[in-house]
Amino acid sequence: MPKSYNGKILRVDLTTKKLSVEEPGEVLYRTYLGGGGLASYYLLRELRPGVDPLGPENILVFASSVISGQPIAGMTRYTVAAKSPLTGGYGETEAGGFWGPELKFSGFDAVVITGKAAGPSYLWIHDGQVEIRSAEKLWGLETGPAQERIREQLNEKRVRVALIGPAGENLVRYACVVNELKHVNGRTGMGAVMGSKNLKAIAVRGTNKLEPQNPEKFHEISKSLAELIGQHGPNKVLRKLGTPNVVMALNTGGILPTRNFHDGVFAGAEKISGERMAETILKTEEGCYACAVRCKRAVEISSGPYATSCEYGGPEYETLGALGSLLCIDDLAAIAKGNELCNRYALDTISTGVAIGFAMECYENGILTEADTEGVRFRFGNAEAMLKAIEWIAFRKKGLGNLLADGVKVAAEKIGQGAEKFALHVKGQELPMHDPRGKTGQGLSFAVSPTGADHVEAPHDPVFANPGPILERVSPLGLLEPVPSLDFGPSKVRNYTYLQLLWSLNNSLGVCNFAVGPIWALPLNRLVELVSAATGWDTSLWELLKVGERTITMARVFNLREGFGRKDDTLPDRLFEPLENGPLKGKAINRKEFEAALTMYYEAMGWDPKEGVPTRGKLAELNLFWADEFVKSKREEN
Amino acid sequence: MPKSYNGKILRVDLTTKKLSVEEPGEVLYRTYLGGGGLASYYLLRELRPGVDPLGPENILVFASSVISGQPIAGMTRYTVAAKSPLTGGYGETEAGGFWGPELKFSGFDAVVITGKAAGPSYLWIHDGQVEIRSAEKLWGLETGPAQERIREQLNEKRVRVALIGPAGENLVRYACVVNELKHVNGRTGMGAVMGSKNLKAIAVRGTNKLEPQNPEKFHEISKSLAELIGQHGPNKVLRKLGTPNVVMALNTGGILPTRNFHDGVFAGAEKISGERMAETILKTEEGCYACAVRCKRAVEISSGPYATSCEYGGPEYETLGALGSLLCIDDLAAIAKGNELCNRYALDTISTGVAIGFAMECYENGILTEADTEGVRFRFGNAEAMLKAIEWIAFRKKGLGNLLADGVKVAAEKIGQGAEKFALHVKGQELPMHDPRGKTGQGLSFAVSPTGADHVEAPHDPVFANPGPILERVSPLGLLEPVPSLDFGPSKVRNYTYLQLLWSLNNSLGVCNFAVGPIWALPLNRLVELVSAATGWDTSLWELLKVGERTITMARVFNLREGFGRKDDTLPDRLFEPLENGPLKGKAINRKEFEAALTMYYEAMGWDPKEGVPTRGKLAELNLFWADEFVKSKREEN
Repeated sequence: MPKSYNGKILRVDLTTKKLSVEEPGEVLYRTYLGGGGLASYYLLRELRPGVDPLGPENILVFASSVISGQPIAGMTRYTVAAKSPLTGGYGETEAGGFWGPELKFSGFDAVVITGKAAGPSYLWIHDGQVEIRSAEKLWGLETGPAQERIREQLNEKRVRVALIGPAGENLVRYACVVNELKHVNGRTGMGAVMGSKNLKAIAVRGTNKLEPQNPEKFHEISKSLAELIGQHGPNKVLRKLGTPNVVMALNTGGILPTRNFHDGVFAGAEKISGERMAETILKTEEGCYACAVRCKRAVEISSGPYATSCEYGGPEYETLGALGSLLCIDDLAAIAKGNELCNRYALDTISTGVAIGFAMECYENGILTEADTEGVRFRFGNAEAMLKAIEWIAFRKKGLGNLLADGVKVAAEKIGQGAEKFALHVKGQELPMHDPRGKTGQGLSFAVSPTGADHVEAPHDPVFANPGPILERVSPLGLLEPVPSLDFGPSKVRNYTYLQLLWSLNNSLGVCNFAVGPIWALPLNRLVELVSAATGWDTSLWELLKVGERTITMARVFNLREGFGRKDDTLPDRLFEPLENGPLKGKAINRKEFEAALTMYYEAMGWDPKEGVPTRGKLAELNLFWADEFVKSKREEN
Repeated sequence: MPKSYNGKILRVDLTTKKLSVEEPGEVLYRTYLGGGGLASYYLLRELRPGVDPLGPENILVFASSVISGQPIAGMTRYTVAAKSPLTGGYGETEAGGFWGPELKFSGFDAVVITGKAAGPSYLWIHDGQVEIRSAEKLWGLETGPAQERIREQLNEKRVRVALIGPAGENLVRYACVVNELKHVNGRTGMGAVMGSKNLKAIAVRGTNKLEPQNPEKFHEISKSLAELIGQHGPNKVLRKLGTPNVVMALNTGGILPTRNFHDGVFAGAEKISGERMAETILKTEEGCYACAVRCKRAVEISSGPYATSCEYGGPEYETLGALGSLLCIDDLAAIAKGNELCNRYALDTISTGVAIGFAMECYENGILTEADTEGVRFRFGNAEAMLKAIEWIAFRKKGLGNLLADGVKVAAEKIGQGAEKFALHVKGQELPMHDPRGKTGQGLSFAVSPTGADHVEAPHDPVFANPGPILERVSPLGLLEPVPSLDFGPSKVRNYTYLQLLWSLNNSLGVCNFAVGPIWALPLNRLVELVSAATGWDTSLWELLKVGERTITMARVFNLREGFGRKDDTLPDRLFEPLENGPLKGKAINRKEFEAALTMYYEAMGWDPKEGVPTRGKLAELNLFWADEFVKSKREEN
């Protein structure tokens, strides 16, 4: 078995148009794997602190992984990372689809982009060849037409395109990156970073065949995973209903974010549920490269005010929450239309929805008036207001659009008048559609995530609160006993810390949380075998989880260097206030318990208990001692 | 596959003669595994701090493990643990042989002994039955005759006996426990604890058949291990020369402890080498239960002043060092005789040798004189003095024997006159035969080992300083690059920390460092598979190494509770002074580097950097939050 994993990193300087290729060698690949691991490595080493995230000095990384592109379900995700214009800290976001594998087929594991192009440009990477091409004729186009134009220009229908829409061009701070018009690197505003670099798209195509180092073992696992997916309960539900399947479960549990997180129960939940979608507007089930789960929805509405094209996919659970229950909107068609607009303009639906919820609450409290909203009544429940707002934000329309395009944190600061209490964010990033008052681990997750509030930072703890098959799946982590959802003591911290390592690993391996994670089909130890089979490394869950820990620690160091600290590891005030209705009415995050858990988390991670600065010993242990120079001064401050 | 590992813990109160049996359940077994893990759990939870280690309140644990006794090479070790009379802190020591497996066959995983018998007693455990029997007629006997008498009394030749000799009865603080007269739980004075409890022996016998939960997988691994052992270079050397094979390598490397650690090269090395032993006094190669390595030596000298019976085995490397090069004794027969005496009296050869080295250096410096030594010239090189001293120590002969029987730390305090600088110990336990001036990781190991200087606390780093097959064997730990022996920076700390977890795991699993460890036959990931096959658990290297870490942390908490702290995590002054000859002449441990490495080690373990108190978050992470109460006050002191 060949011992060496060989991969190439493409470097692009958009300012000088210089292109170069690096082969960093096996030890680097084994230490960082790909995705978030590789991206945080490059950002931490090469990005000067304090730069403008939307300036040419920001570094933008697209990274797949050492197993990405292998023909097996659930290994398609790739990372886009840079300093975030939304948070001012570490930005990272993953998407599935087809782009990540195609990057590998094109001959590269990652692309590291610096500088700013003189005019609109896009990258064309194909079979080891790289071109920086003009995007003059693409600039201003929505994602659909832009992708089509690129395929025409390249005369290649099967080219995969990760690109931005008008929102990214207009530097909306939560603009996203989209591939195949529906697979979204949604969070932390990476679309705006592309826009700031005059980079409309990266088109990739390749015929490079990836050979696992141990083909026999690889195919055995691949075959067994295909069978497991067919039998596995949660995968069957995902196939049938997609992520929208959780709308009803969360509503029943009293934690469906509603009315800008005032409530945990939504009267219109059933109308926006996965079941309702399946019965009405669902056109097809779709999936990512090589995946049999097919959890993606494509919806179609052929006529009427909310006519929606299925090429932009369909709303995920997060979108149903953010454009639906959060805003008290129970019109599934309107939500589907909102989702389509967000994908056309390449706007993150979560931040968009929370920004609109913020505006609605301001409006209902008289802080914004019809003078600010061009006469539109920004009341909760108004679907028209939601759709208008999406347009305004994407194009930074003077007034409310431009205001909301900077995210709720900045908007609240500009408005003043106590609007901050309506701004649901952590570190400037808007809250996903999960209410920590019903799952404390989620609260810790939102608070400590280096990217700000993020629902793919670690799993939602209710699924681990029950013994049985789920608990058995996490047992290789040493998590042997259930921890109740509302507990916020040492066991919850332990549970969260270990699972965060796993989630972080998934982001570095490009593994889908639906195909592999503890609640899904492939057992953890089989994932380790899979990595071994693909790379030829005699690796282990220990070594892999340490990559997860390494990545979290690099992101922490990155944020500390940018001035973040404990003050930023917090939750919006609303979550410390009681839920106003439903089965969890009266439940709030206990501030004292939260602070104690935060301190324990810092300590569990080997960070100092006050500000969460990784200790020298922890950096040594993680083979990250090279990063000590970036936080030395922070340590002396304490 | 049955999911539940069922094991039984026998409780014996020697004061009240109460016997009871506990079944602590699967989660406890999976969390602590056995050996050191299980022992430190019971000691930390149940032993009151501050008790006299030789008083009835001390708790004595004999523990095998969840895989011990399975018919496979290298899984025979068991642990004896208690508060140590030598250090006053956590005491733990492992031995191979046949006793551990037989305990499992008898129906128990561990024995937890409290109180003190009214008169000399021994325990007889057979097929789930337990008796406390009189040892009136055994008291005072050497180990050989005592074992024979027990087998006669029980009318059962195949009974396995772990027992003490006169040294334990006489409360020599480094008396050991022996099974089959040659497999030794050597360190930390567990023999004295048995003696203090009037417990001469534990005899075990059983017909309980251990069935692995996944027999097919188990036997596949077992078969493959047998083949690997046959092919594996280091195992072949062990088979041929036993542990004495390293005498010449260490001498060539300049780190064979000589003249009480003044020198690293011994002129007589060849005469006491494994090669010489094989050519002269070696009678047979022997081994432990089910093991094909057969690294044990049995030597025989049929006549003359040093006539030696092979039933007491033969000197290991540590003994050749401690009774040989350390004392500048190059007479292999005299060393073999010394080894036999130590096994007859059940004295730890390492501490015995270092105690004699201390006496010799005191003598050569005029601190001890012929008035103290009954006219014997205690010069380095005097084999007669060595043999006399062993007798005197074992029987606590008034004067020098009684003085040395308390260990070099206490002896030096009693003597005064600067004798402390000749006392080579850490935390009161005498140094094993490895010189940290040629391998810095060993220095860290001696300093931080919870049991005081201990050579089975973590491996000697030179073997990891070279790339190639050895490095590949530790790669599942994420150790991918060589670290030079003399480096004492962050990489060495990382290396040591990870390997210590593995060594600690071995002590909890009862795994022999020669049959499995990174430098030997069974790859790490196969060990994980083996544990899974034996127990039915879907475990991982992550989960298992966390048991290793948990055990180290419990021992740390135990020691902190007893008043230990950073001041005790140090090395004898001599190691900070240069080696006086050989290829490493002039090399010394650099004190500043050592202190920096110590702090980094604390931090890497999640302990506070000043005193090494585990943080609350680390206790939470390791599922040890229950132990917080034992160190809370230490934390407030800092």
